[in-house]
Amino acid sequence: MSTPKILILGAGYGGLMTALKLQKELSYGEADVTLINKHDYHYITTQLHELAAGTGDPEDARVFLDELLDARKIRFVKAVVTEIKPQERKVETTGGTFDYDYLVIGLGSEPETFGIQGLKEYALCIRSLNAVRMIREHIEYNFARYKNEPEREELLTIIVGGAGFTGIEFVGELADRVPELCKAFDVDPAKVKIINIEAAPTALPGFDPELVEYAMNVLQKKGVTFRINTPIKECTPEGVILANGEEIKAGTVVWTGGVRGNSLVEKAGFETMRGRVKVDDYLRAPGYDNVFVVGDCSLVFNEQGRPYPPTAQIAIQEGQNCARNLVALVRGGSLEPFKPHIRGTVASLGRGEAIGIVGGRKLTGSAAAWMKKLIDLRYLYLIGGLSLVLRKGRHKLLRV
Amino acid sequence: MSTPKILILGAGYGGLMTALKLQKELSYGEADVTLINKHDYHYITTQLHELAAGTGDPEDARVFLDELLDARKIRFVKAVVTEIKPQERKVETTGGTFDYDYLVIGLGSEPETFGIQGLKEYALCIRSLNAVRMIREHIEYNFARYKNEPEREELLTIIVGGAGFTGIEFVGELADRVPELCKAFDVDPAKVKIINIEAAPTALPGFDPELVEYAMNVLQKKGVTFRINTPIKECTPEGVILANGEEIKAGTVVWTGGVRGNSLVEKAGFETMRGRVKVDDYLRAPGYDNVFVVGDCSLVFNEQGRPYPPTAQIAIQEGQNCARNLVALVRGGSLEPFKPHIRGTVASLGRGEAIGIVGGRKLTGSAAAWMKKLIDLRYLYLIGGLSLVLRKGRHKLLRV
Repeated sequence: MSTPKILILGAGYGGLMTALKLQKELSYGEADVTLINKHDYHYITTQLHELAAGTGDPEDARVFLDELLDARKIRFVKAVVTEIKPQERKVETTGGTFDYDYLVIGLGSEPETFGIQGLKEYALCIRSLNAVRMIREHIEYNFARYKNEPEREELLTIIVGGAGFTGIEFVGELADRVPELCKAFDVDPAKVKIINIEAAPTALPGFDPELVEYAMNVLQKKGVTFRINTPIKECTPEGVILANGEEIKAGTVVWTGGVRGNSLVEKAGFETMRGRVKVDDYLRAPGYDNVFVVGDCSLVFNEQGRPYPPTAQIAIQEGQNCARNLVALVRGGSLEPFKPHIRGTVASLGRGEAIGIVGGRKLTGSAAAWMKKLIDLRYLYLIGGLSLVLRKGRHKLLRV
Repeated sequence: MSTPKILILGAGYGGLMTALKLQKELSYGEADVTLINKHDYHYITTQLHELAAGTGDPEDARVFLDELLDARKIRFVKAVVTEIKPQERKVETTGGTFDYDYLVIGLGSEPETFGIQGLKEYALCIRSLNAVRMIREHIEYNFARYKNEPEREELLTIIVGGAGFTGIEFVGELADRVPELCKAFDVDPAKVKIINIEAAPTALPGFDPELVEYAMNVLQKKGVTFRINTPIKECTPEGVILANGEEIKAGTVVWTGGVRGNSLVEKAGFETMRGRVKVDDYLRAPGYDNVFVVGDCSLVFNEQGRPYPPTAQIAIQEGQNCARNLVALVRGGSLEPFKPHIRGTVASLGRGEAIGIVGGRKLTGSAAAWMKKLIDLRYLYLIGGLSLVLRKGRHKLLRV
């Protein structure tokens, strides 16, 4: 019997956690594990909104994979996946073709545009380190441009489409960043506008209404304008056009309105909903008992039959479950179904402010902000131990 | 007899020095002195190339005027001059009309495009704090864009048109900055190009050939490519087209190829050469014994009959002479002709490197770099005393 080949696609929360747990559990030579990722680093997606606003340091939000992986147990390949061929048990990448006995798909998400015209072309998205550095630079560039074309005040308007978790966390950071930018570029703060536009009848749809109101109050006091119940019809090079025909000019439009699974998953022939595979109890793609799907590409339902939203928390747990089951498959044990444990949810609102529900209790203000920090630090500990907490988490602890 | 009205236009080296020396020499009420400037700060033009490259802090390169001016002696008006009417003894500004008994014009320079098509539209110029923040942001933005459009390597090419003092000093700083940018944006340094294009048969035309060679060697080792004897025919949104038809694509084009006097001076009816007024021995505009012209708008010839280049050094001395003669006019003394004392010239080549001629001696390397620092610090001392040296000059002393 030959050594089983495990191929992991993507080093996001789900894929990385699968790889790290396999690295821990498997002995040398027990399986031939390969991890393929576009970059040679993992980034901490839950911090990207800070980098996009310019309040966080990109180096605190990424970890180079060679710091985490034991090359004797996991082979890392830096390549872009171009096609998944589950029937042939093959994956095409820019670094060649890979075959496998077991496949783990953790290729993350893509922005969901809901058919809004121009969004793909003219809006920026909080989706990768390169994308958020672009947002930060785009905003700064517009401040610099405004000082050279002072009649173009719209350069100072930032529209954030979507008031879900990412949108709310992003405007919170932006509101903290604006006074710094105004100082650095000699801009009158009264001229800067942050407008958060949401199509649903409320910000943070599905979240506790009392906490939503708290969040909106905090953010409005920081200078954020909300346009709730306001669908965007079109995004243009000049800004956005609302469903009611109103045009809002803006130098920057950032879209946080939703995500769908990586389109490679749909193209591979798996049945999907919004690009996500409705996996079985063991996170396997229907019809393939050797293909696991974790993270944002994976669709899991709660007991009420509603899909869990794509979060880091669930992706991490999926990775852990997936690795456990892969070990069982390699060694001939029995599989354990995936059961998510939702510990809670915390959304940051910028410096020292957050809202959340943890262990069934509502949290606001600095208590919630500290909880958010602990969640971030816990994750660093999970993937890289105390040394990573100290290296990457320091600023988080110092910046209160 | 009424109090004489002295109106100073512009708070650059020439105008500010005139104002500060008047402030020192005149007693309260001896004259009614007004200084009009576009901004409420003075910026240290000789440091702008550092800010454009992103190696210097903008706050070290500007001084707010209220820190320097005694409001009981000098009235400061923040306004933009729109027209000078010397025959009516009036000046129109965005802050109203001003009349005067004595006028000092220190309105600085504008880029000289030599009729090169597209330069005005597509090239950036090192000319003000707002303009250099724009250059810095433009370059950073292109690094961010490249990471999202990696097929567009030309985004990483920076063309500097002109290898005079500003061009040479700027590419020196840029070469220092590029490794930092590459690190911050994960860019392969081999893909970044700094190309300095000069139409004349040599870099730094008119400067000592041995020092020019030294400078080019230093800069080439830092990664700068020179295209000397290479006129630019056209600037486009994609880069530049040379006189020989060759196109060089570039995300950033910065033009440092020359300046001319502020166009308001020509429009006022003064006889000009490249926008500069050929002043008399007392820096007065021909035909007007109450209009003084200092700094880049003023054209003074040396004993060989060649015009002095527009430099901070000569502008400062002109301001001092002008103030001295204004005091004489107010009190009824005799005028003293302007005699420049050229102490020397030093051009920085980035961190720790420079070339120069000081007191007839050639300097290179760290000796020249220190001399450059001393010149900058001396100027801070001249306008704001030791406290200003300590506040604004600190970084200069620490960064060797």
